[in-house]
Amino acid sequence: MTGSTTEGIERLSLNQMTTRGWSLAEAVRGCAEAGIGGIGVWRDKVEEAGGAVAAAKLVHDAGLSVSSLCRGGFFTTPGAIEDNRRAIEEAAALGTDTLVLVCGGLPAGSRDLVGAREQVRDALGELAPYAGEHGVRLAVEPLHPMFCADRAVVSTLAQALDLAEQFPVEQVGVVVDSYHVWWDPELYRQIDRAGARIAAYQVCDWTLPLPADALLGRGHVGDGVIDFPPLSRAVAAAGYTGWIEVELFNQEVWDTPGELTLRRMIERHREHVALR
Amino acid sequence: MTGSTTEGIERLSLNQMTTRGWSLAEAVRGCAEAGIGGIGVWRDKVEEAGGAVAAAKLVHDAGLSVSSLCRGGFFTTPGAIEDNRRAIEEAAALGTDTLVLVCGGLPAGSRDLVGAREQVRDALGELAPYAGEHGVRLAVEPLHPMFCADRAVVSTLAQALDLAEQFPVEQVGVVVDSYHVWWDPELYRQIDRAGARIAAYQVCDWTLPLPADALLGRGHVGDGVIDFPPLSRAVAAAGYTGWIEVELFNQEVWDTPGELTLRRMIERHREHVALR
Repeated sequence: MTGSTTEGIERLSLNQMTTRGWSLAEAVRGCAEAGIGGIGVWRDKVEEAGGAVAAAKLVHDAGLSVSSLCRGGFFTTPGAIEDNRRAIEEAAALGTDTLVLVCGGLPAGSRDLVGAREQVRDALGELAPYAGEHGVRLAVEPLHPMFCADRAVVSTLAQALDLAEQFPVEQVGVVVDSYHVWWDPELYRQIDRAGARIAAYQVCDWTLPLPADALLGRGHVGDGVIDFPPLSRAVAAAGYTGWIEVELFNQEVWDTPGELTLRRMIERHREHVALR
Repeated sequence: MTGSTTEGIERLSLNQMTTRGWSLAEAVRGCAEAGIGGIGVWRDKVEEAGGAVAAAKLVHDAGLSVSSLCRGGFFTTPGAIEDNRRAIEEAAALGTDTLVLVCGGLPAGSRDLVGAREQVRDALGELAPYAGEHGVRLAVEPLHPMFCADRAVVSTLAQALDLAEQFPVEQVGVVVDSYHVWWDPELYRQIDRAGARIAAYQVCDWTLPLPADALLGRGHVGDGVIDFPPLSRAVAAAGYTGWIEVELFNQEVWDTPGELTLRRMIERHREHVALR
């Protein structure tokens, strides 16, 4: 790989969900060939690849780094604590310091949003020291409020920071995912507040119209309404120097050959996200 | 109408959107027969009924009150100021002091969310005195963040209050619509802050799964995840004593005979919303 090939994409990472049809081995090969140095991996794909130790070898032998493990959380579901301990161990074995948490929605049949949010805080309290012992940081991801009922009762960056700040900075951080937070009138103030709490910066665009399955509405950077240059500058100004993951849930993207998806990611990253 | 028939529903109002298949005359008759004393009207239905003066006569002759006019706003669209002046005049002619505002999304092709929000503030500045002269209050409705791009760049109650508080309380207020704000970690604090700024309280439920058209996911009170008793108590504790409108956008409800819809509204209002 020559210097010019990777110029401007030194911090770009492929979140595996973007190339959902690829195995971990295929995604690693795709990244290596495209000059992408980071990969955010998913637990099911790691499992398919023979577990965390085998997956780590696969990634590192190709000269790549694991930018994050997706995902822990779902704290409002029975058995969550034990499952999250395993996720922490897997993150450590994979050589990443970032475990992304989708915190879970309302328990089945419940309307107790306040109680569900307390469950999340309590779970973080149980897990944070364990994460710390493993050199892993729990990265609380606020999800768009349209997922509050069924996926994450953590809905804003302010709320995620209110949670994270109850723990040491090396144990609990937050994720800034453009898709989930772009609309927030408090966004820039909260990014500034977040500072060293920012554990991950994930990007994809908000496109219209929303698709029939609201989960799958994420577009390539540049295809939607999010203004990426000021957002990326704000995250940088807060002190974040880590990987920038592209995470798309989008059936059309999933139907596209992975090589083309990576090529588009790179173009769009250079155009909208990489700081000049 | 006997006292017992309307007991517990003294503040219940039908927002006309809920019985979309009905003309204004049909909706007024339906409400009168069911013992519902308020009706929130839509401009297109008022127009069909012969304009604001004729519509007002229709409503008042049946012993009903107009709880609000829906809707003004869309300030990021050319011609909005003139159109909103007409909406203010119509509200006054209808005998309601509440004009609900859906403030508009990003202008076509724009990514400038900050600029769009400034447009909203500037439009309120132009319109507020005109509303005041007509005895009408502009009711800024924060819409769920999933509508930020295409319908309303005002996304939270805090943001709506930041806007409203720049104007006299009798000129600009806010709408608390359960569907749009239920997820907000700041909700109860902001309702308390809102106090006399609350110009309308609208109710419907958040049901899962989200439908293919995200606009149409609103369920009858009690069919979803929103906890209405504490929400209703908070709105009351803030000092709001006005109408409680049921506003459903839901194809199944629209396919149901209006009389049945009104009956269900009444049952659910008594069970979940009316304060005991």
